Amino acid sequence: MLSVAVDPGHPLVGAVLRSRGAVEAWDLVRHGAIADEAGPGRRTRRPEAWAGRARAVVGERLMERAAEAGARLVVPGDPEWPGRLDGLGDERPYALWVRGRGDLRNACLRAVAVVGSRSASAYGLHVASGLAHDLARDSWSVVSGGAFGVDAAAHRGCLGGGAATVAVLACGPDRLYPGGNGRLFEEVVEHGVIATEHGPGVRPTRHGFLVRNRVIAALAPGTVVVEAGLRSGALNTARHAQELSRTVMAVPGPVTSALSAGCHRLLRDWNAVCVTDAADVAEQLGAVGEELREGGGTVMAVDGLDPATRTVLEAVPAKKGVGPAEIATAAGVGMDEALRRLGLLAAGGFIERAASGWRVRPGTGMAKDRV
Amino acid sequence: MLSVAVDPGHPLVGAVLRSRGAVEAWDLVRHGAIADEAGPGRRTRRPEAWAGRARAVVGERLMERAAEAGARLVVPGDPEWPGRLDGLGDERPYALWVRGRGDLRNACLRAVAVVGSRSASAYGLHVASGLAHDLARDSWSVVSGGAFGVDAAAHRGCLGGGAATVAVLACGPDRLYPGGNGRLFEEVVEHGVIATEHGPGVRPTRHGFLVRNRVIAALAPGTVVVEAGLRSGALNTARHAQELSRTVMAVPGPVTSALSAGCHRLLRDWNAVCVTDAADVAEQLGAVGEELREGGGTVMAVDGLDPATRTVLEAVPAKKGVGPAEIATAAGVGMDEALRRLGLLAAGGFIERAASGWRVRPGTGMAKDRV
Repeated sequence: MLSVAVDPGHPLVGAVLRSRGAVEAWDLVRHGAIADEAGPGRRTRRPEAWAGRARAVVGERLMERAAEAGARLVVPGDPEWPGRLDGLGDERPYALWVRGRGDLRNACLRAVAVVGSRSASAYGLHVASGLAHDLARDSWSVVSGGAFGVDAAAHRGCLGGGAATVAVLACGPDRLYPGGNGRLFEEVVEHGVIATEHGPGVRPTRHGFLVRNRVIAALAPGTVVVEAGLRSGALNTARHAQELSRTVMAVPGPVTSALSAGCHRLLRDWNAVCVTDAADVAEQLGAVGEELREGGGTVMAVDGLDPATRTVLEAVPAKKGVGPAEIATAAGVGMDEALRRLGLLAAGGFIERAASGWRVRPGTGMAKDRV
Repeated sequence: MLSVAVDPGHPLVGAVLRSRGAVEAWDLVRHGAIADEAGPGRRTRRPEAWAGRARAVVGERLMERAAEAGARLVVPGDPEWPGRLDGLGDERPYALWVRGRGDLRNACLRAVAVVGSRSASAYGLHVASGLAHDLARDSWSVVSGGAFGVDAAAHRGCLGGGAATVAVLACGPDRLYPGGNGRLFEEVVEHGVIATEHGPGVRPTRHGFLVRNRVIAALAPGTVVVEAGLRSGALNTARHAQELSRTVMAVPGPVTSALSAGCHRLLRDWNAVCVTDAADVAEQLGAVGEELREGGGTVMAVDGLDPATRTVLEAVPAKKGVGPAEIATAAGVGMDEALRRLGLLAAGGFIERAASGWRVRPGTGMAKDRV
């Protein structure tokens, strides 16, 4: 709910969330009282706007719209929550709306952010897709922003290489932007993950893109800028990566191309690492997520599950997958809760996403019991 | 004479030169006794070969051939000797054979080495000539190796930009290699300097090119590699520059081009600075030779000259230049001595090279006295 009322990643809200928890934070936002929680130095006029928006939020309607869009809500502490986001401190997202068969946390365990110019050259598109493809063949997921140009080429290359790709958008999960990448987003939902801080119905804003970039940088241990002019948003993503002490890499290009000038500035002034192929990138990131290359996923014991999660697991079929609404009904829990438990079960390796929805993962003890 | 008998830049010879002087060193080489000067750890079998070659040298014939080729001999301590070469320690050249109207030391005061692949791409040639041109317009001389490809483009760009260029060759001054660059070498003689460690008659060898590269690196405070494959000799020059603690710079290129792979390796593994234009290069080298941008050259007082040099100066005409042989005759000194004194006078700003030879520099007190 915070995600539709409050500016994403606002440190004041982050601090209150950390100290008081989500329920109290929401209450403070609704009553316009959240600024009182901050010290005198952190006062801001935003809380008045937030309070107005928060009072207009109808939680049930929001969850309905998310369910219609096939989105689940992932909050800090959830099994699907990517731990690297915690590097953002009080600017950590309050929550992420997630779509797609992939598990966000799993996809980010061995991931690289690949970003660049929207108006990329043929060279930039070629390098982005080739790099992402080769990274995917080496079991690296590619995180990017779903934009035209380098972002789209990177997502496509990753999917072509057989790994889950993560598209972090700056709009609601039901308003995938830009529309021209609609077919790509369908593929990402099918084989990867779309994640956004913004709740259903939110349209993208210019500021939103910049704020979104910190999430891209935070989800991966390293960011590669493939092709970027001096004013490209990709440099903003690289800046966030640097602030997070993540590895910043740049692909060089012709010095005669203004579209590579941003990359060259990263190399010259920002101490970015010069990378020319997937092997260079992998070498920089070392043994990150190396354990995922064989088999993938960490399977936990069913005994370790809490009763509520076990109830949801028992509602998941063994062969043909079913949607979360059906599972929620079968388990006798709300949609919101069902989605969270399903995320946990997916992260734990108990279930997986099939074409038609969730099913128990073949080869696990659970599946055998139920055949 | 050492330059036709002994391997260039051999540290054993360099050490003996330093401790005993040129006359004794030459005597030791001729008698095959130079190895005795070294400690037991520095023994080498080369002195036998050197002695054989040294005994075959006829000094007068050598100087005649040099004079025919228009070459002068510059030795350490001469006014035309570039002080930066001393950074090579015992591997410093014993002497340099120099051709051209430019003054070697003056040309190197504000200089950049620009090197790269012989089999350069259109991109590499374009960048090399443009970079050298823009550097020349900013009063930077360009030092390179006179080879096809990037070297030739850099020399041409520098000449086009109006600065003296320095071509360091790996052959005798009378055997300019490669012959295909003959027209370029003529222009360099006219507007710049050709320098070589090798005496008249010496043909280039593969080893000679590598040894030559240390001189290119030593003559400038920084080396730029424009385009180089992984096995390019330009990386050898960059290695020398690094060993000399000079600034190593590399121009990036498309990662899809094997001809830029060496540059990218320099950026990634050798901590080379990424440069994309002349301004980047100038920024890296800071205030090197900044005082030369206005006016150029340091004019010394005639009173400061020793009598022998003053005698040579008096033999230099005021308007139409004449060749060194004529000056030597007029001054009543040997050709070798005349060339050395002329070099000193040129470095001191008293004389300059005109189309037909040396003349007194217009605007100096000397010229006025003699009009």
